[in-house]
Amino acid sequence: MTPAFILVRPQMGENIGAAARAMLNFGLDRMRVVAPRDGWPNERAVALASGAGRVLDAAMVRETLEETCADLNYVFATTARPRDLTKTVMTPERAMEHARALAADGQKVGVMFGPERAGLENEDVIRADAIITVPVNPDFPSLNLAQCVLLVAYEWGRQTSDVPPEVAELAGARWAEGAEVDRLRDRLFAALEDRRFFWPEAKAASMRANLENLLRRLPLTETDTRTLHGVIRHLAERRPEE
Amino acid sequence: MTPAFILVRPQMGENIGAAARAMLNFGLDRMRVVAPRDGWPNERAVALASGAGRVLDAAMVRETLEETCADLNYVFATTARPRDLTKTVMTPERAMEHARALAADGQKVGVMFGPERAGLENEDVIRADAIITVPVNPDFPSLNLAQCVLLVAYEWGRQTSDVPPEVAELAGARWAEGAEVDRLRDRLFAALEDRRFFWPEAKAASMRANLENLLRRLPLTETDTRTLHGVIRHLAERRPEE
Repeated sequence: MTPAFILVRPQMGENIGAAARAMLNFGLDRMRVVAPRDGWPNERAVALASGAGRVLDAAMVRETLEETCADLNYVFATTARPRDLTKTVMTPERAMEHARALAADGQKVGVMFGPERAGLENEDVIRADAIITVPVNPDFPSLNLAQCVLLVAYEWGRQTSDVPPEVAELAGARWAEGAEVDRLRDRLFAALEDRRFFWPEAKAASMRANLENLLRRLPLTETDTRTLHGVIRHLAERRPEE
Repeated sequence: MTPAFILVRPQMGENIGAAARAMLNFGLDRMRVVAPRDGWPNERAVALASGAGRVLDAAMVRETLEETCADLNYVFATTARPRDLTKTVMTPERAMEHARALAADGQKVGVMFGPERAGLENEDVIRADAIITVPVNPDFPSLNLAQCVLLVAYEWGRQTSDVPPEVAELAGARWAEGAEVDRLRDRLFAALEDRRFFWPEAKAASMRANLENLLRRLPLTETDTRTLHGVIRHLAERRPEE
């Protein structure tokens, strides 16, 4: 089960809506809201959520954190400030790694986010099993509520994503085979020999080697080799006035 | 050198300001701006940047992408849409890993972000060495400009951060030593024996074992053991009316 994101005493409807969108961007749709300042439902939240309105519709809304956390096995509190409390502090990365392990174990996980102005109170943080602190620039720590939700949601997505870290997008082509690059090299060398490019003779071999090495270093598709055949042929053609 | 974040034809000053703040949150202060719609400097951008105004003051502003990228060795393009181009597509994670390696090699790296409405044009993307695509929920991909900047900046910060993934914050205490937990166990067991808790006799040994195992599982500080001594003493005291 994906983690519940718990907005504790949120103030601006705009931020509730933006939080819903940030969550749904990474597949999270379990929102809980504790004592929203402007009541519930919140028009501004709905307006800002646009396509993520269903996250708001399905949200659990309660007056106290105690009711909100009643069924959860493990709760994180996001906070930037150090508290005078003995508590584990994790990066979002480590926290979502842990959340994934807990979820795989069948546990219900929550992540609390504090109100915009002041963040979570100490009594909220005490309820948490661990703290999440985003490692921001200590000279400029200015994350707002929706940004904090976005980063934790992103980490959940990253930890559970099956998107490969790197793929080569091919535009309807396939990578060139060795023989295709051979033929391209032969075409280029023939054209250049014709124009006496490999000169002086003493340097010709190393010039050929460097040029072939350059060709081999290029990540060429089969289509690219055909394009370059055309380019070389056209460049090598004697112009009418020659 | 940290990567340059290149805003290509940005429209709203608000988003330029928010991008500056998102960058500086993760220690990035090299902004470049190509053909901003509303000219430069931009009042709304300055207002929204608040503490990150110096990122805007130091920004390189040019009319074309070509001038903007002239001194860069490697450029990423952020885009969500697949293009009909043969190009490597990376996650932000993989891309910033690569950026860090390039930077360590002395290369100058840039990351392009497109205008709010339509994103980068194909002719912008063609200039890039690789594409960054944030792996969002395919059913709800709604990242805006400032959010995309925030996530890539966060990844740079994450890849270059020396913040430990998990630390135990201690409130002016130290972890309990074995003998301190022994004394707590002895106090608890004595109080419970006094009240005939370990009964029936046949189960007493396993009750003791489970209770000691529970105690040993708690991550107690030295202060915690003293607190719990007091708790047990008070609970075990006979009330006046007994």
